[in-house]
Amino acid sequence: MPPRPVFYISDRTGITVETLGHSLLSQFESLAYTETIVPFVDNDEKLEACIVRIEAAAQASGQRPLLFVTLVNREHQARLAACDALMVDFFRTFLGVLENELEISPGQRMGHTHGVRDPGQYDARMDTLNYALRTDDGSGAQQYDSADLIIVGVSRSGKTPTCLYLALQFGIRAANYPITEEDLEHLRLPPTLVSHRSRLFGLLIDADRLHRIRSQRLPDSRYASLAQCRYELRQLQALFQREGIPWLDSTSMSVEEIATGILHASGRRR
Amino acid sequence: MPPRPVFYISDRTGITVETLGHSLLSQFESLAYTETIVPFVDNDEKLEACIVRIEAAAQASGQRPLLFVTLVNREHQARLAACDALMVDFFRTFLGVLENELEISPGQRMGHTHGVRDPGQYDARMDTLNYALRTDDGSGAQQYDSADLIIVGVSRSGKTPTCLYLALQFGIRAANYPITEEDLEHLRLPPTLVSHRSRLFGLLIDADRLHRIRSQRLPDSRYASLAQCRYELRQLQALFQREGIPWLDSTSMSVEEIATGILHASGRRR
Repeated sequence: MPPRPVFYISDRTGITVETLGHSLLSQFESLAYTETIVPFVDNDEKLEACIVRIEAAAQASGQRPLLFVTLVNREHQARLAACDALMVDFFRTFLGVLENELEISPGQRMGHTHGVRDPGQYDARMDTLNYALRTDDGSGAQQYDSADLIIVGVSRSGKTPTCLYLALQFGIRAANYPITEEDLEHLRLPPTLVSHRSRLFGLLIDADRLHRIRSQRLPDSRYASLAQCRYELRQLQALFQREGIPWLDSTSMSVEEIATGILHASGRRR
Repeated sequence: MPPRPVFYISDRTGITVETLGHSLLSQFESLAYTETIVPFVDNDEKLEACIVRIEAAAQASGQRPLLFVTLVNREHQARLAACDALMVDFFRTFLGVLENELEISPGQRMGHTHGVRDPGQYDARMDTLNYALRTDDGSGAQQYDSADLIIVGVSRSGKTPTCLYLALQFGIRAANYPITEEDLEHLRLPPTLVSHRSRLFGLLIDADRLHRIRSQRLPDSRYASLAQCRYELRQLQALFQREGIPWLDSTSMSVEEIATGILHASGRRR
């Protein structure tokens, strides 16, 4: 059987509808499908062009397409619903339910899901991102007083992407600081961090995984050896325990999960 | 009337369910509500703790809570559905519809929405992020041969966040290069970029907005003056046109929208 055509259709970026569609489809492991993302469908021409693609895919595959849709425009929803396809409409399905519950009529604003609600918010996010870049890998410690969080861990444990994601997604001012072998040997907090203890959050990672990551950078080095990775991580965990620093193990987590997990565990508002 | 309690409940990060809930609620402009995000609800204890919070919020506000939910566990879905609250369940609502259409029974895997599907994919994303950091603001030009995209624009037009987001969200290797005043005066492409013309993508921005952004950095400078911003942007647009470089205007767009818009306009796969 040829793969089923799947379309993710949005009047904005399509990031949310794609994520949600993936999540639903991941429940049907044996399903073979091809994916097409159609973002920015915000006028009649783009909608008609999208319908042409849907019909062509149906014809070529001989299979009824699946449409995952977040469109605010009701005429556009209706046009798509009239296609010979299964439509999963994340907005239309629930707006009526909410309208009944809230006893308010919904407006029809284009989804501001990932839009700039106000420039001040955008500027604030750029400010947090610049902060993360300035305070990456132990730099800019004189700016730690304004940090929401300081992420600590050994080299290559995922500190930088975590901080950038915390800034971009959540507007959190997150610095990061590498714990060196010397600090680990003496099981001591680097002096720079002592007065910022309450902002610290630790990252641990499985030694095998760290060994593989470091080996890509410096193969066959002492730095990348499994023994060295094990030693550093064991000492680091002991240090976190001794100093009462909260931490999480990032081994099987994506950047989104690490960032969300840190906010959740540290009680920071997102 | 006290604000309505709104809960976003997920067995993973809650990023998707919060985005979608926001989008739906933004259609009801006059609604006053308080928001609580409850991520990582992946066992019975966490679910029961979440229900306690929902009931407390209902009692305190005297209002029926709204629950936006993405939980894979069906017993957990059912427990929540039994609360005295309006539940918008993005998974359960559509799984039955999909099951009928596909004639496959769904599994019950925890949502891998933002999880690490395989470590290879995670490594690839870290690799693209490191690439973006190494090739930020004109650095690392000797690595341009492996760029998917090189974002060009004037200072403070949003190149860096765009590249980081392209890397983190889409695994795209994006470098960025600042076009200087001297290049703009001569309406010429910087020599470094000439052999990479097909990878270039331009960013424009409204002159007033650029003036405000630059003024935060260097108030009352020639660099930040409205006249200078206007001049640079006019010349830049002329350069893009002359060299056939695709571009978009990022003024009223969020980082997500800029990144998605670039992929869409340049035909790059996400």
